[in-house]
Amino acid sequence: PRAREAGVTVGILQPGPLNAITDVAGVKVGQVTLARSKDVNTGVTAILPHGGNLFQDKVPAGFVAYNAFGKFMGSTQVAELGEIETPILLTNTLNVAEAGAASVEWTLAQAGNEEVRSVNAVVGETNDGMLNDIRGRHVTIADARRAIESAKAGPVEEGGVGAGTGTVAFGFKAGIGTSSRKLPASLGGWTVGVLVQANYGGVLTIAGVPVGVKLGRYDYRQQVEEKKADGSVVIVIATDAPLSDRNLRRVAERAFGGIARTGSSFSNGSGDYAIAFSTSDAVRRTAAKRNAVSAVDDLPNDRMSPLFQATIEATEEAVLNALFKAQTVVGNRGTAEALPLDKVLPMLKGKP
Amino acid sequence: PRAREAGVTVGILQPGPLNAITDVAGVKVGQVTLARSKDVNTGVTAILPHGGNLFQDKVPAGFVAYNAFGKFMGSTQVAELGEIETPILLTNTLNVAEAGAASVEWTLAQAGNEEVRSVNAVVGETNDGMLNDIRGRHVTIADARRAIESAKAGPVEEGGVGAGTGTVAFGFKAGIGTSSRKLPASLGGWTVGVLVQANYGGVLTIAGVPVGVKLGRYDYRQQVEEKKADGSVVIVIATDAPLSDRNLRRVAERAFGGIARTGSSFSNGSGDYAIAFSTSDAVRRTAAKRNAVSAVDDLPNDRMSPLFQATIEATEEAVLNALFKAQTVVGNRGTAEALPLDKVLPMLKGKP
Amino acid sequence: PRAREAGVTVGILQPGPLNAITDVAGVKVGQVTLARSKDVNTGVTAILPHGGNLFQDKVPAGFVAYNAFGKFMGSTQVAELGEIETPILLTNTLNVAEAGAASVEWTLAQAGNEEVRSVNAVVGETNDGMLNDIRGRHVTIADARRAIESAKAGPVEEGGVGAGTGTVAFGFKAGIGTSSRKLPASLGGWTVGVLVQANYGGVLTIAGVPVGVKLGRYDYRQQVEEKKADGSVVIVIATDAPLSDRNLRRVAERAFGGIARTGSSFSNGSGDYAIAFSTSDAVRRTAAKRNAVSAVDDLPNDRMSPLFQATIEATEEAVLNALFKAQTVVGNRGTAEALPLDKVLPMLKGKP
Amino acid sequence: PRAREAGVTVGILQPGPLNAITDVAGVKVGQVTLARSKDVNTGVTAILPHGGNLFQDKVPAGFVAYNAFGKFMGSTQVAELGEIETPILLTNTLNVAEAGAASVEWTLAQAGNEEVRSVNAVVGETNDGMLNDIRGRHVTIADARRAIESAKAGPVEEGGVGAGTGTVAFGFKAGIGTSSRKLPASLGGWTVGVLVQANYGGVLTIAGVPVGVKLGRYDYRQQVEEKKADGSVVIVIATDAPLSDRNLRRVAERAFGGIARTGSSFSNGSGDYAIAFSTSDAVRRTAAKRNAVSAVDDLPNDRMSPLFQATIEATEEAVLNALFKAQTVVGNRGTAEALPLDKVLPMLKGKP
Repeated sequence: PRAREAGVTVGILQPGPLNAITDVAGVKVGQVTLARSKDVNTGVTAILPHGGNLFQDKVPAGFVAYNAFGKFMGSTQVAELGEIETPILLTNTLNVAEAGAASVEWTLAQAGNEEVRSVNAVVGETNDGMLNDIRGRHVTIADARRAIESAKAGPVEEGGVGAGTGTVAFGFKAGIGTSSRKLPASLGGWTVGVLVQANYGGVLTIAGVPVGVKLGRYDYRQQVEEKKADGSVVIVIATDAPLSDRNLRRVAERAFGGIARTGSSFSNGSGDYAIAFSTSDAVRRTAAKRNAVSAVDDLPNDRMSPLFQATIEATEEAVLNALFKAQTVVGNRGTAEALPLDKVLPMLKGKP
Repeated sequence: PRAREAGVTVGILQPGPLNAITDVAGVKVGQVTLARSKDVNTGVTAILPHGGNLFQDKVPAGFVAYNAFGKFMGSTQVAELGEIETPILLTNTLNVAEAGAASVEWTLAQAGNEEVRSVNAVVGETNDGMLNDIRGRHVTIADARRAIESAKAGPVEEGGVGAGTGTVAFGFKAGIGTSSRKLPASLGGWTVGVLVQANYGGVLTIAGVPVGVKLGRYDYRQQVEEKKADGSVVIVIATDAPLSDRNLRRVAERAFGGIARTGSSFSNGSGDYAIAFSTSDAVRRTAAKRNAVSAVDDLPNDRMSPLFQATIEATEEAVLNALFKAQTVVGNRGTAEALPLDKVLPMLKGKP
Repeated sequence: PRAREAGVTVGILQPGPLNAITDVAGVKVGQVTLARSKDVNTGVTAILPHGGNLFQDKVPAGFVAYNAFGKFMGSTQVAELGEIETPILLTNTLNVAEAGAASVEWTLAQAGNEEVRSVNAVVGETNDGMLNDIRGRHVTIADARRAIESAKAGPVEEGGVGAGTGTVAFGFKAGIGTSSRKLPASLGGWTVGVLVQANYGGVLTIAGVPVGVKLGRYDYRQQVEEKKADGSVVIVIATDAPLSDRNLRRVAERAFGGIARTGSSFSNGSGDYAIAFSTSDAVRRTAAKRNAVSAVDDLPNDRMSPLFQATIEATEEAVLNALFKAQTVVGNRGTAEALPLDKVLPMLKGKP
Repeated sequence: PRAREAGVTVGILQPGPLNAITDVAGVKVGQVTLARSKDVNTGVTAILPHGGNLFQDKVPAGFVAYNAFGKFMGSTQVAELGEIETPILLTNTLNVAEAGAASVEWTLAQAGNEEVRSVNAVVGETNDGMLNDIRGRHVTIADARRAIESAKAGPVEEGGVGAGTGTVAFGFKAGIGTSSRKLPASLGGWTVGVLVQANYGGVLTIAGVPVGVKLGRYDYRQQVEEKKADGSVVIVIATDAPLSDRNLRRVAERAFGGIARTGSSFSNGSGDYAIAFSTSDAVRRTAAKRNAVSAVDDLPNDRMSPLFQATIEATEEAVLNALFKAQTVVGNRGTAEALPLDKVLPMLKGKP
C-alpha cells in the first residue's frame, strides 16, 4: 500500500486527487524498468513538464544541489537561463550519458525543431550498484527514449520501477515515489507535485517515529562507516503556480526539509539534488515571449510560504511511498528487503 | 529544564559533557541581555572560536544561506577566503550595524592589531520585533562589545538571553539554545557543538511528535498567512575536527536538516543562515601559515558523514533547548508564552 | 577632463547625454566628501534607484561577488529576494557599520514606513587606508545620512569625492567615476549607467594601451608583492530595461569584463563586487505587486547581449573617468599622484 | 605562426618553455580531429592532469560558470568535493554524452578500478554548428576514447584541431589555443598553463588594439543581433602550485579577465566556463589521503595574486594562439576565414 493507504499521513495540507506529481495538470511521467535478472536491476524515469514541444515552449525552473556528490547533467544552464527545454530524466549513475544522448536525439527529432543545434539535456541519477551490475551500463539510448515516449498523465507507478528499479534507502528496497499537495483556495489554490528517486541512508524516520532505531537498522549502528555504494536522492517538483525561476529554486531548496524528516543524514556519498518547474501558461517561455519584452505573471515572494510547506510535506510522503510500495529484490551484490510493514505499522500506532 | 533533562532525546549519538557549543575546546560564549521593560527585550550573543587573537590566528569557516531573507554581515569574505577573523555576533535585525561596529572597534584595539586596516565583522540576526521595540534600535556598540568581552568557556545560558531575549519560535518564547555531540573514537572522536538563535515558525515537532498540531497552534492553521514580523534562525557550529573551509560549508548545510526536523517550513520571511568553523590548531591560519606554503591537516571527504549526522542532531536539540529553557515574556506588541511543558511532555511519552 | 573630453573613447556604443549613471531616469546620486586634513580623506557616496519610497517600491536587483575579499553588506537578501529596498551606499572598509546604521535609520524615518521592522541596508566599500586614517573611523552616521539626503539627478562629481575621496587605483589617485551607454533603438533603446568606486591595481591599461608598463609603474614590477592595504572596486549598474533579477545578476557579472580591460589583475586583496538594478516601472515591486499574482514585464534572455556589451563599455569608461578626474592627494601614509595626463595622452595617440 | 612568434606579446610575465598547458609537469593532451568533409568539422580534446590513475589519485580542482549557457558535464561534483577524478574532455555541444560515456568506460577499464561503481565524467563543449553538421552527432564514444588514449606531454597542436576543429571566434576561424606563464622564483616559481576552446564573439581586440573595429567586423555592427549559433569558450587551467580547491576556483575565475581583454562581450548565448586543477603531489588525493586525516600543502590566500595575473595573461594569449594558428575552413553552413594576419599585424605595430 501507499503510506496514506496504510494509515500514515504526514503534514497538515491535503494531497491532490492522485497524490502524485501528475496532479499538476499537464505533467507526464514515463518509466522503463530493466529487471531482467539478478544482475540487471535498473531503468529510466522521464518527467515531462507538458505535452507540447518542450524545446520551443520552455518552462521556468530552479535547481539546487544540496550535496553534489552526483552526476546531475544540465544543471548549469538551468540555473543561468532559469529554464528547462527537455524532459527530466532519471537513471543510474553510470548511464547518465545514455539518457543524455536520448534526450538530445529525441529533442532534435521533434517536429518544429529542425533548426535546433543546441539542446540542454537534464539528467539526474542515483547509484543502484548493489542490486544492479552498474558497471555493465545496461541502460541504452533506446531505453531512455522509450521512457520519454511512454510518458503519460494519470497515476504513477511507485517502488522498484524505472530509475528506482535498483535503488535502496535506509537499507530497505526503495525506488520511485510520488505525492502532492493542493493548497486551499485561501492560500492560492496551487498544486505542488513531487517525484523522488530514493536511494539514501540515515536513521529511517516515519511520521516522526525513528523506525530505523526500533528495527535496529541504521547507519553508524556498528559505529563504523561500512564501505557502501554512494546513495543519493533526486527530487523533481512541479507546480502550476506562476513562479519565477528564482522562486522555483527556493521551492527546490525546501524539498530537502522533507528528506531531513525521513531521517537522512545527508552523508558524504549521497548526491542530493532537486529541480522544480512551473507548468503555468503565464510563465511559459514560448518563441514569441523569448523574442521581445512581454508580460509574465509572478507570484511574489510574500505569497510563497504555503508552497514551501507543501513541498516539504509532499517530498516526505513521496519517500514513504517509495519505501511502502517497493518489493524485496535479490540483486547483483545482495538482497534489499522490502520494508517490513507488519512490524513497522504497529510502531506508528497513535500517530496523528 | 533542558530537553534532555526533561527526558527528551533526539538522535543516536551522545552529547559532550556540557551538551553545549563550549564542549569544543577553546570556544567561548558571551551574552548581554537587554530586558529593561515591556518594550526592550533584545541583546547580543558573541561566539569566539578561540581565546587568542582571532584576527592574527584566523580559523577556517564555511557559510550557508538557506533562505537569505536576513541581514547577515560578513558572509561574502568568509566564503571567498574560507575563514573568520573576528567573533561571531548575533543580535536583532535592526542593530546589525552596532554589532558590526563593535566587532571592528574591538578587533582594532586588540594587542598585535596596531597595523590592521581591514576587519571582516561577522554578524547574524533575527527579528525580535514582537517582544522588542526593534525600531528603537536599543542595542549599542558598547552592549555588543560587552558581549565579546564577557565571553567565557563553560555552560551557556539558554532561553531568553542575549540575542534570544526577544525571539519567538513556533509561537512560543524561544531564544538561545545549544547542544553538542561527541563522536565515538571509531568515528574519529571529534566534537561538534551548535548554538542557535531560534526565532522561526512552522509546525512544532519535538522528537518526531507534531506537538504544534496537538496544541492547535501552528502556521497555516487559519489557512491564512497572518501578517507577522519575519522570523529567522542563525546557527553557529564549532568543531575540533581539522576541516577545510569547503567541508565546513558542508557541515553548515547539514544544520538545516536539524531545523527541518523541528517542523520549520522555511517560510519566505525566515532568514535561515549557518556558519561553521574549526578550532583545530592544525588548520588554524596563523601569521606564519598565511605567509608561505605550509602543511595543513585535512579530514577527507570520505570521513565526513559522522560529522554531518552530529550536526543535524545537535542542531535539533539546540532548538529544543531554546524552547524548553525560555520563560514567558510580556513584550512590546504581545506576549510570548513559554512552551507548556506540562502539556507537551505527556505527548512525548513512549518516545525513544 | 573626463576621458572622452581628453579624446579617449572605449567601445562601440554611444554614451547618454550626461555619460553618467544618472542618464538612467530617476537615479539620484549624493556624495559627502571628508577631506579635512592630511589624515582624513574619506567619504560616502549614495545611489538611489528612484526618488520615491525605496522600501515600499522595491526594485529588482542582481549581485555578484567576483572576488569577495570585502565587507559588502546586505548582499544575501538581495540575491535571495532579487530586490533592493534601500539606497546603495559606498564608503570605506571600516565604516560600513555607520553607513548601514544610516540606511536603517533613514528608511525607518521615511513617511509610510512607520510599521517597518526589517530593513536590508546595502553598503559597499573599498579600503582608503593609504590616504585616510582609516582606523580612526571618521565617517559618522550623520555623514552617511547626508549623502542619502543630498542625492540628486544630473551630472555626477568624479575623482576624489564621496567614497572615492581616499581611493587609489594602479598607484594613482582615483575615486568615483561614472559613464553610460544608450543602445540604439534597433537594440532596444535602453540605457545602462555605471558608477564605480575605483581602488584596485594591476597594469593600468587605457583603451588597450598598457600605460602602466610605459610609465614603469605596475604591480609585480619589483617581482615582489609589496605589503599594501587591500584594494577593491565596487560597481553599481542601473538600467531602465525591464529585467528580471536573474538577468540583472548577469548584467552585474559583465561589469568585471570592463574592469579586466583596465588592467586589473583581480588580486587576492581586491574586493570586487557589482550590483545592478532596474528602474523600470514595469518591474518595480510595489506594495500591490508584492501582495498578489501580477504581471511583470520581462526582457528575455535572447535580447540581453547588447546590455552586456553596454555594461562592459560603461564600466571601463567609468574607471577611466575616476582616474582622469582625480587630483593629487597628500594623505595619511603617503601621497597619491594624479595620473600624469601630459605623459599619458601622447601614449594613446592614434587610438580609435 | 603563434602570436608570440608573430611578434605579439601580452602581459608582463614570461611563458614556460613550450608556452603551453603542458609546461605544467605531468599534464597530457590528446586530440582527435574529425575533418572528413565540408559537413563534418568537429572533434575531441582531452586534458589529463597526470599520467597515473586519475580516479585513484584525484586532483583538487575548482570550477566557474561565468555565463552558463552551455552543457558542461560533471561540474556539481567538482565543486562539492573539490576534485577531478577523470580526464577533462572538450567536444561539440551535441556530443557531450558520447564524450561522457567514453570517460566512464575508460575509467572503469583502468587497472585498479575494478571495484569502481561511480565515475564523474567532466566534459566541456562549444557549438561548432556553423562549420559542422552538429545535428549529425558525428563524434563517437570511440573517438573520445581515442583522444584520451592519445594524450601526451610536449607541444600541443593549435587552431582547427580536436574540439576546435569547427569553432569560430569573432567571426574568424579559431579553435584550440594554449599558453603558459612561469612565475619568477621571487613570486613562487610556479607554472600556470591554459588551454582554451575558443568559439565566442565580441569586438576582437589583440594586445589592446580593437582589430575587429579596424577590420569592420564585429558584433552589433549592423546594430542588429544576427541569428547565430551560440558560441562559447571553455578554459582549462593547470598549475603545479599546491592550491586548495577554493583557491583553484579563484584561479578559474580570473581566466575570464583574459577573455575580456580579447574583446568578448560575454553574450547571452556564449557558454563560458573555466576549470582549474593542481598537479602538485602535495595536494593529490591518493587512496591513503582520502582515508584518514593527512597533511596537505597549502599556498595561502596572501600568496595567490601572481597566479591570478599569470592566469589572465596565459588565457588571453591562448585565445590569440587559437586564432593565429587556425586555417580557413569551408564548412557545413558557411566559411570561416583565418584571421588575415597580413592586415592584422601592421595594426599592431609599436605595441609593447
